[in-house]
Amino acid sequence: MRIAFLGYGTVGRALYALLARRRAALSREYGIDYVVTGVASRRGGWRVNAAGLEPEQPTGEIVDNVTQWLERSAAEVVFEALPLEPMSGQPALDYLRAAIEHGVHVISANKGPVVHGHRLLTELAAARGVCYRFESAVMDGAPVFSLARACIPLAGVRSVRGIFTSTATVVLEAIESGHTLDEGIGLAQRMGIAEADPGYDVDGWDSAMKLCAVANVVLGADIRPSDVTRAGIRELREADVRRARLEGSPFRLVGEISRGANGVVAARVGPERCAADGPLGAVRGTTLVMHYEADVFPGGLTVTSHDPDPTTTAYGMMADLIGVMGTPR
Amino acid sequence: MRIAFLGYGTVGRALYALLARRRAALSREYGIDYVVTGVASRRGGWRVNAAGLEPEQPTGEIVDNVTQWLERSAAEVVFEALPLEPMSGQPALDYLRAAIEHGVHVISANKGPVVHGHRLLTELAAARGVCYRFESAVMDGAPVFSLARACIPLAGVRSVRGIFTSTATVVLEAIESGHTLDEGIGLAQRMGIAEADPGYDVDGWDSAMKLCAVANVVLGADIRPSDVTRAGIRELREADVRRARLEGSPFRLVGEISRGANGVVAARVGPERCAADGPLGAVRGTTLVMHYEADVFPGGLTVTSHDPDPTTTAYGMMADLIGVMGTPR
Repeated sequence: MRIAFLGYGTVGRALYALLARRRAALSREYGIDYVVTGVASRRGGWRVNAAGLEPEQPTGEIVDNVTQWLERSAAEVVFEALPLEPMSGQPALDYLRAAIEHGVHVISANKGPVVHGHRLLTELAAARGVCYRFESAVMDGAPVFSLARACIPLAGVRSVRGIFTSTATVVLEAIESGHTLDEGIGLAQRMGIAEADPGYDVDGWDSAMKLCAVANVVLGADIRPSDVTRAGIRELREADVRRARLEGSPFRLVGEISRGANGVVAARVGPERCAADGPLGAVRGTTLVMHYEADVFPGGLTVTSHDPDPTTTAYGMMADLIGVMGTPR
Repeated sequence: MRIAFLGYGTVGRALYALLARRRAALSREYGIDYVVTGVASRRGGWRVNAAGLEPEQPTGEIVDNVTQWLERSAAEVVFEALPLEPMSGQPALDYLRAAIEHGVHVISANKGPVVHGHRLLTELAAARGVCYRFESAVMDGAPVFSLARACIPLAGVRSVRGIFTSTATVVLEAIESGHTLDEGIGLAQRMGIAEADPGYDVDGWDSAMKLCAVANVVLGADIRPSDVTRAGIRELREADVRRARLEGSPFRLVGEISRGANGVVAARVGPERCAADGPLGAVRGTTLVMHYEADVFPGGLTVTSHDPDPTTTAYGMMADLIGVMGTPR
């Protein structure tokens, strides 16, 4: 099977390394044997080598655009992990569309295209007989969309609450321990987890994007980040953040989507105090959590991913690959 | 599609009610339209009616044995929720085997057959081209086996820790609040969650059974409850239980399976102090939790099902039905 990497930053490299570590098991347990025939990045351009290449030091030819890259790499699966463009999902959205129209399975870690093009890409993929998967777009590769699809069908999910933006938790914890908001942002940037524009994380846009992805895919809604009632953590007074922690129910940036009695899905994100013994209570550092309310789970079902790293995001993409191309042996 | 209930107690009734509530959605979203053509219980015998019956007040004929019941009901899917027999899994194991040999899909909520016959039943089902599913055998219908199959393939799970027996938590909490162990057992029995022999729960046998099911299915081991290093909560001094609670890290009955460096899977169950801010820390009442350690989840992945009830167990069986027979529309 020929695969290609569209975007080759931290996640792309982690995915390449993970696939290499699992090469024998992928073949033995799922019949997946792969060769990399394309890699594209801002720095390296559209690189192809139908005979196979090492993405770390790619050989082969540089072509001009995505169409040539898809043709000459003859990739059957494209892994997309380009930088996020929150407002339009571009250019990733156009590239994914081109790949699908070319008859290629696409596996994306990017929430931009999910938010701005989920319906379009899904319908296009169905028409072309290929798959569009994006497990890693929310919760860094922990099961979200595969869980909804394979584990909780017709569970009657009423609402989903969670902590989706680890930068916000890291900043709040910095404030709790006596630092300022700006110092907390600096820390998150040094940890490599903040987006280029830290306002995107602390003002709730990142959570809003992820809520839209979950709402549109899992609850069948059709909302955009501008539809999300949104507040960030900048509005909090630092003294209040510290007092809440001392009182045992710290502020966290919580996102929630719920279906009202009228069937309409509403979404909101904002700082909330989380009791230590509640489902969102144990969240520290970069840990992410999603809590589902449904009539078949009287107290709810919670999925918590503790301290994910780029390998976790890469793993979500590998799990998508297995779901799309694997045949259990 | 013809379905039949083998065992019709609390879980069977909850399943029948849940299927009725989801009838329209099962048809519309998964193409599943069903009629009940058989129900079997100790009290009611082997009842069949090929024209359809109401399991609450079954009409039709009473036949002599499982073979006649399978033939005359012409069921395509059998839901098994018979009382557990921990030492052999019988008679459920023989009945499931008969159903599979008859070419029927079987969906079981019973951990006995998983522990004592998983390999046999799975191989037999593969040979007959039918499915054997048992999502509800562990964690009361919250995703365990579907999660392992569909969400975390090749995650490299090293160990699974969890709280699998809600009776043990309820008894420990009763002791924490000043009652005796026997009073706690009485409470669990009045809540309807304790097994007929409460020693089965408090001495760790229930957890040991569930650990074996997870070890054998998810980690590919082949162990039996007698292979599990086992301690129960009876060994604890009540004063120690109360002090641990006051110190903020109460005792819980924790089960753990792990794969050693030599590849061998070891399993143990016993009381452990659980820190409030750890992955097993928020567990109260009947809440169940499983925590997976794997290299792709640096701090682990935790699934928590808060306050499950018989509908949760029934839901796991319905999710199995959708997995086996559903075609997403």
